[in-house]
Amino acid sequence: MVFSASQIALLINGKVDGNPEAAVKSFGKIEEAGEGHLSFLANPKYEEYLYTTKASIIIVNESLELKQPVEATLIRVQDAYSAFATLLGKYQELKQQQLKGVQQPVHISASATYGDNVYIGAFAYLGENVKIGNGSKVYPGVYLGDNVVVGNNTTLHPGVKILHSCQIGNNVTVHAGTVIGSDGFGFAPQADGSFSKVPQIGNVIVEDDVEIGANATIDRATIGSTIIKKGAKLDNLIQIAHNVEIGYSSVVAAQAGISGSTKIGNGVMIGGQAGIVGHLHIGDGAKINAQSGVSKNLEPGKAVTGSPAHEYTSALRSQALSRKLPELEKRIQELEQLLQQLKPTV
Amino acid sequence: MVFSASQIALLINGKVDGNPEAAVKSFGKIEEAGEGHLSFLANPKYEEYLYTTKASIIIVNESLELKQPVEATLIRVQDAYSAFATLLGKYQELKQQQLKGVQQPVHISASATYGDNVYIGAFAYLGENVKIGNGSKVYPGVYLGDNVVVGNNTTLHPGVKILHSCQIGNNVTVHAGTVIGSDGFGFAPQADGSFSKVPQIGNVIVEDDVEIGANATIDRATIGSTIIKKGAKLDNLIQIAHNVEIGYSSVVAAQAGISGSTKIGNGVMIGGQAGIVGHLHIGDGAKINAQSGVSKNLEPGKAVTGSPAHEYTSALRSQALSRKLPELEKRIQELEQLLQQLKPTV
Amino acid sequence: MVFSASQIALLINGKVDGNPEAAVKSFGKIEEAGEGHLSFLANPKYEEYLYTTKASIIIVNESLELKQPVEATLIRVQDAYSAFATLLGKYQELKQQQLKGVQQPVHISASATYGDNVYIGAFAYLGENVKIGNGSKVYPGVYLGDNVVVGNNTTLHPGVKILHSCQIGNNVTVHAGTVIGSDGFGFAPQADGSFSKVPQIGNVIVEDDVEIGANATIDRATIGSTIIKKGAKLDNLIQIAHNVEIGYSSVVAAQAGISGSTKIGNGVMIGGQAGIVGHLHIGDGAKINAQSGVSKNLEPGKAVTGSPAHEYTSALRSQALSRKLPELEKRIQELEQLLQQLKPTV
Repeated sequence: MVFSASQIALLINGKVDGNPEAAVKSFGKIEEAGEGHLSFLANPKYEEYLYTTKASIIIVNESLELKQPVEATLIRVQDAYSAFATLLGKYQELKQQQLKGVQQPVHISASATYGDNVYIGAFAYLGENVKIGNGSKVYPGVYLGDNVVVGNNTTLHPGVKILHSCQIGNNVTVHAGTVIGSDGFGFAPQADGSFSKVPQIGNVIVEDDVEIGANATIDRATIGSTIIKKGAKLDNLIQIAHNVEIGYSSVVAAQAGISGSTKIGNGVMIGGQAGIVGHLHIGDGAKINAQSGVSKNLEPGKAVTGSPAHEYTSALRSQALSRKLPELEKRIQELEQLLQQLKPTV
Repeated sequence: MVFSASQIALLINGKVDGNPEAAVKSFGKIEEAGEGHLSFLANPKYEEYLYTTKASIIIVNESLELKQPVEATLIRVQDAYSAFATLLGKYQELKQQQLKGVQQPVHISASATYGDNVYIGAFAYLGENVKIGNGSKVYPGVYLGDNVVVGNNTTLHPGVKILHSCQIGNNVTVHAGTVIGSDGFGFAPQADGSFSKVPQIGNVIVEDDVEIGANATIDRATIGSTIIKKGAKLDNLIQIAHNVEIGYSSVVAAQAGISGSTKIGNGVMIGGQAGIVGHLHIGDGAKINAQSGVSKNLEPGKAVTGSPAHEYTSALRSQALSRKLPELEKRIQELEQLLQQLKPTV
Repeated sequence: MVFSASQIALLINGKVDGNPEAAVKSFGKIEEAGEGHLSFLANPKYEEYLYTTKASIIIVNESLELKQPVEATLIRVQDAYSAFATLLGKYQELKQQQLKGVQQPVHISASATYGDNVYIGAFAYLGENVKIGNGSKVYPGVYLGDNVVVGNNTTLHPGVKILHSCQIGNNVTVHAGTVIGSDGFGFAPQADGSFSKVPQIGNVIVEDDVEIGANATIDRATIGSTIIKKGAKLDNLIQIAHNVEIGYSSVVAAQAGISGSTKIGNGVMIGGQAGIVGHLHIGDGAKINAQSGVSKNLEPGKAVTGSPAHEYTSALRSQALSRKLPELEKRIQELEQLLQQLKPTV
């Protein structure tokens, strides 16, 4: 797809400064872009590249004052970064919409149904009673177990596995290799030291507008549902155990893990590699730092760090002092020596 | 499948209290269940729901004394929770047994063999000399490399990859996306700073009754075998490096990692996100807390926490004191000031 | 494949001591090997097994002096361990070279091309304009998105997913289940608390001689490229975020995670489960201990440990002292009591 400067200006409500016929077919960073590339300048730190870049079109802030002549065609907008992001979004949407039809071979059960403008890639598997809405994209190698429901305009990337009876909402994106609906980790200890499996017969519900990263795992509930609420964003390789709930628009960074039955509130931020033990309540808007280990309920808005996790500011102060421990020990030693000298004089 | 109260009572050795023809076809938590659902009441905290639930049948303890009339049919048993779990187990077994036959397309090598009542899902791949026992279920998209052996009544969920020459026992469950038999991470540093690969030609042996979570990785041995012993339970996203051994009925929680050649004893509990360095011996019955970093051998029964990990009780005490460091520093300061005042008087 | 002692001696430049016709068809550890196995003795600790092993051929150091008669045929070389490793490498190379041809069913787009001596396993997917070089092995269930380029002699294990526009070099190995080119985790917070996705339109470039473990995730750049440079070795379940760069021959152990835009230098060692925050520079040759949490730039050659990470030696000293905190507190208490006694006398 080739776009001219005037077409782009129209899409992002900008003003062309240069050749309106300048054409681009790809994107690039201003310091690396070549001919036929569209780029942008938002951070003044990169302004020097404006005068040397080979990009054909550059989106800039309307307030920019040129210090030298520029070869590229400029498009001036109020906020260059957000205009560029908007443009990328429209471009991807366009490409996504072009993806349609059912490739071969696939395995689609007789009882499975799907809506209009759906893409089902080769080697995809749709079990009994699977329902897929309109405009959804099921990439190659995706597995949908019996009774799985997928909404409209949802994208399941290659190799995603949604196990039986799980429900995926509208406008959801699940990245490659992620497993939704694996059994929760439930075993009852027996008298002889062995374990007997506790059947896991619940499901997972992923609400609208959720995005889940690659190779993540979300276990089904023992009974009832593990729930990822509307707008939550989960990164790669995260682990969500059985019966967990993630609140609206909460964010979980890569490799974090949440143990069984813990309820995460709305707008919570969980850093990478953080761990949360089971059966806790994490209040709305709480912030959990990367690598923290949370072992107690958190009140709304609370910020914590460390393993075990404690209130952010005091934890930082303790951490700083623990690095000063050699000095503290020396001060104690000096006090002991001083007192030793004092004692005889008493 | 629809079941009546009298059929269920028979299965779990219970007594029907209400309509023996009451019918259910699904399960639900007492606080959420609807018509046609079977539920249970074990925790007295939830008794209030007994009088408002829409569930058609509820399993209760025989000792329960009703405080109000109940609409649902009750089934009284000695232990409601364990009766309910038993029932779920039987239900899943029943469903599992119904799964049989070979779907198309699959790739089954001419030299591969499999027993009776086996399920092989679409897009499964069975390499040369693969052997699968009776009653095993190989879900869609499973990959079994050359010379892989799988026992009886073993379940390999969608997208599981067992690489060449690995052996999987009887009654094993491997959840979706897990990789067994990837190369160990072995590289010999070269004079020029690059690395030369050390070939990994061993395999992985998974013994009977083992369960392994989703998207986990278990590396093959350099030479010999990486071994997961009978009854061990491994959670999602765990990493088992080359030549590791996991003892009988040991439990490894999600996202934990065990480095090369470490031997884990029997009945060991390893918490989520814990890490164990290579070439260690972890004694039988040891308990390793979540997020611990174990860098030394552990004696049998030892409990540890922290990174680096230390004996549980003393580590907790040190952790508690490290949060009191600001106070300790203040006390040192006060002592210094006091001594400063004392000194001139000497 | 069966090999005789004289054939093996030829391959590794050794001298046969025993029957030159002794034959082996498999490998085993000296303490476990049986008839028809080739083994080696490098560590003197294992010498006792030399006199009891059932192995048919054993590679030993030329300097070895026998203390008892040995049944097996010996092959004497300068360095038994490295000779054995060389042999394994040649054996695997031989097996790998035999793997050729295109299995059925596969999905190969009309515009996809591939070189000579390529293996493409069943259920592999090659999107539009995919290019694969000579001698590369694409195992069953591999997904290559549109415009993916794969070099020569590269091995993509079962279920690897390389998403659109990513580039993989020569002699690269990617283990099973790994995802390359998933979207970076980029979301712009909106006024109402929800998040809007920032399109991720860059790619991933994996240079020559890189090895990547199983079930790992490497995100594509927002714009530009996430880059894994020549000779880098990445273990299982690692997370590489958007726009990260990993330098030449750097090593990242299992379950480590590197956040967005961080640049890792050359020859860096990153331990298992370590985490590095975004937008940092890690200098050449830096060493990051397992489970460390790096939140600041590191100078070349710097060694760090802990979370947050600090200089290795001083961090160890602080860690040691933090375990002595109960003792330090007691010493402070004693000082306080002593001073209490002193005070009245002043």
